[in-house]
Amino acid sequence: MLLGYHTRVGELKSRVEVLRWDGSLQVLDQRLLPWEERWVSVESVSQAVALIQSLAVRGAPLLGLVAAYALALEAQRCPHLDHLEGQGAALAKARPTAVNLPRAVAKMLSLARQVPEEKRGPTLLAAAQQLHREETSACQRMAELGAGILAGPRLGVLTHCNTGVLATGGVGTALGVVRALHAQGRLAMLYAGETRPVLQGARLTVWEAQRDGIPVTLLPDGAAGSLLASGAVGAVVVGADRIAADGSVANKVGTYPLAVLAQRHGVPFVVVAPTSTLDPHCPTGSAIPIEHRQPEEVTHWQGKPWLPFEVTVYNPAFDVTPPELIMALVCERGVVTPVTQAGLAEFCS
Amino acid sequence: MLLGYHTRVGELKSRVEVLRWDGSLQVLDQRLLPWEERWVSVESVSQAVALIQSLAVRGAPLLGLVAAYALALEAQRCPHLDHLEGQGAALAKARPTAVNLPRAVAKMLSLARQVPEEKRGPTLLAAAQQLHREETSACQRMAELGAGILAGPRLGVLTHCNTGVLATGGVGTALGVVRALHAQGRLAMLYAGETRPVLQGARLTVWEAQRDGIPVTLLPDGAAGSLLASGAVGAVVVGADRIAADGSVANKVGTYPLAVLAQRHGVPFVVVAPTSTLDPHCPTGSAIPIEHRQPEEVTHWQGKPWLPFEVTVYNPAFDVTPPELIMALVCERGVVTPVTQAGLAEFCS
Repeated sequence: MLLGYHTRVGELKSRVEVLRWDGSLQVLDQRLLPWEERWVSVESVSQAVALIQSLAVRGAPLLGLVAAYALALEAQRCPHLDHLEGQGAALAKARPTAVNLPRAVAKMLSLARQVPEEKRGPTLLAAAQQLHREETSACQRMAELGAGILAGPRLGVLTHCNTGVLATGGVGTALGVVRALHAQGRLAMLYAGETRPVLQGARLTVWEAQRDGIPVTLLPDGAAGSLLASGAVGAVVVGADRIAADGSVANKVGTYPLAVLAQRHGVPFVVVAPTSTLDPHCPTGSAIPIEHRQPEEVTHWQGKPWLPFEVTVYNPAFDVTPPELIMALVCERGVVTPVTQAGLAEFCS
Repeated sequence: MLLGYHTRVGELKSRVEVLRWDGSLQVLDQRLLPWEERWVSVESVSQAVALIQSLAVRGAPLLGLVAAYALALEAQRCPHLDHLEGQGAALAKARPTAVNLPRAVAKMLSLARQVPEEKRGPTLLAAAQQLHREETSACQRMAELGAGILAGPRLGVLTHCNTGVLATGGVGTALGVVRALHAQGRLAMLYAGETRPVLQGARLTVWEAQRDGIPVTLLPDGAAGSLLASGAVGAVVVGADRIAADGSVANKVGTYPLAVLAQRHGVPFVVVAPTSTLDPHCPTGSAIPIEHRQPEEVTHWQGKPWLPFEVTVYNPAFDVTPPELIMALVCERGVVTPVTQAGLAEFCS
């Protein structure tokens, strides 16, 4: 464990909401943010898959939650195991990188197999709600631990993509740590990389920060080098979509360059992710499946092309940061530092 | 000098044009590319300044050329030294980072002072045309030298921003090297970072490459880390806007992260720039003035906002790469490697 400011943080709150359950499931459509706050009713697994694949819902912990609720809905409609297994398989492979998705599905299907048909609907719903509570309290705990290991009276924090309420259903992973620093009066500035191609940093993180009164500065991803060289950044704090057994972290593309730059400038690079993101069955970073997405994400904006010609595009959704670049991994169960296979194994038990 | 493939390259050509002189000066408006090829007549220095500041013309060598032609035009209209000095001062400070701009102005004003009023018009025009020829032949020479130091039968080249015809009036600096490799049958792929915020890589480099039949793949700037980690890149080749006496290179923001990543992956990082970009009066990288541009470049696209709210933006146009990250600096007079103050001083004489 690192020494740091172990100040207690009161319960963190946000004005942002992303998922509602009141007998039916509703999610905020993140494709339309920050222009429009449109809530979508999720009625089926096939609809959930479409929302997940189009990035209407995204963020590793939130993907797990939506998968769990969607399977609970299916169990209410049709509790046959064959049906649920088929729906679960479709959900689990909706996107390949975030392990929370197949993990939540496996958990729900395992429960479904243990109870008789007539109990599957209520059992799976109770399990989804329990997962929701767990992820929410994991966020609070990670925020406290993460703020605790970041020393200094005030610091600038650089982050990437969106790791807040919109990614977790709780106060966030990396953005939860930022919220805790802000609550303690120790956040000089949140620097949000815009996160091309889909601009989750510009569209989602800036919006969340402004909603909650957190001072935020937006930058193009390529400007992170000069920002770090300027000395304005006291820590780089990011989330994760899947963490291999060796501590390699798959996260939104553009994360790995930040880790390399942070090392060069002696700035702590911290990953904040719930244990639901740890994948002990994935031995190394190179074993993590990396999703490559369609070229239109790069060449188009809101359905219109930026470029009047066809072009080959390299568009991986994630990259992999090796453990030696990560100062600490903050989970809800504690802080792993240095990030080693043995250190991580304790948290996977 | 590095050993490499010293194959002679025939005269390189491009289908792209950016600057025409036929008694009047015309430039291609790069703000509209690749959607529209609109040529603009430049009638005065104040118009040239506006075109430079709005990025209708950009690229360090091209800025020098446009400044030279614009002053020649002013000398034809009004050859008084006071007038030319005033116009030159406005031009020289139109953008602060590229040294080619004040250098071309200083050269033209020095000539103007040496000749009587009635000769200033033709003298300055001849000097602008001479500079144009020099920059064009410098591009050809740099392309040969640069391709010569890059070993290997075939390689992928990652570049940033635009350093081609559109930036130089010749075949380009870094993109000239790419053209030479392609002419030699040694280019596996040109990887063009899109170069946020103004997307010179996506809009200009991809367009130039496709015009000239060069295989090109576009990527978001943040994807350069995983591309380098994949092993697809044999060299990172970029241009420069100003090179300090210690070998520090100011270039389009996002260049420095590529240099840090290239070092980590053992990939040669090569800067290609004419000696007109060297500034012996600027001792170190931190002495290079870095232009910070308006937030709308990041938050807007083609006049429309991406974001429905105001936000603080960090938008430096350039960053600085220290010499220890640069394997070689290719100028038209030769190759400096390693990049040291003493090595550079020879080329500044």
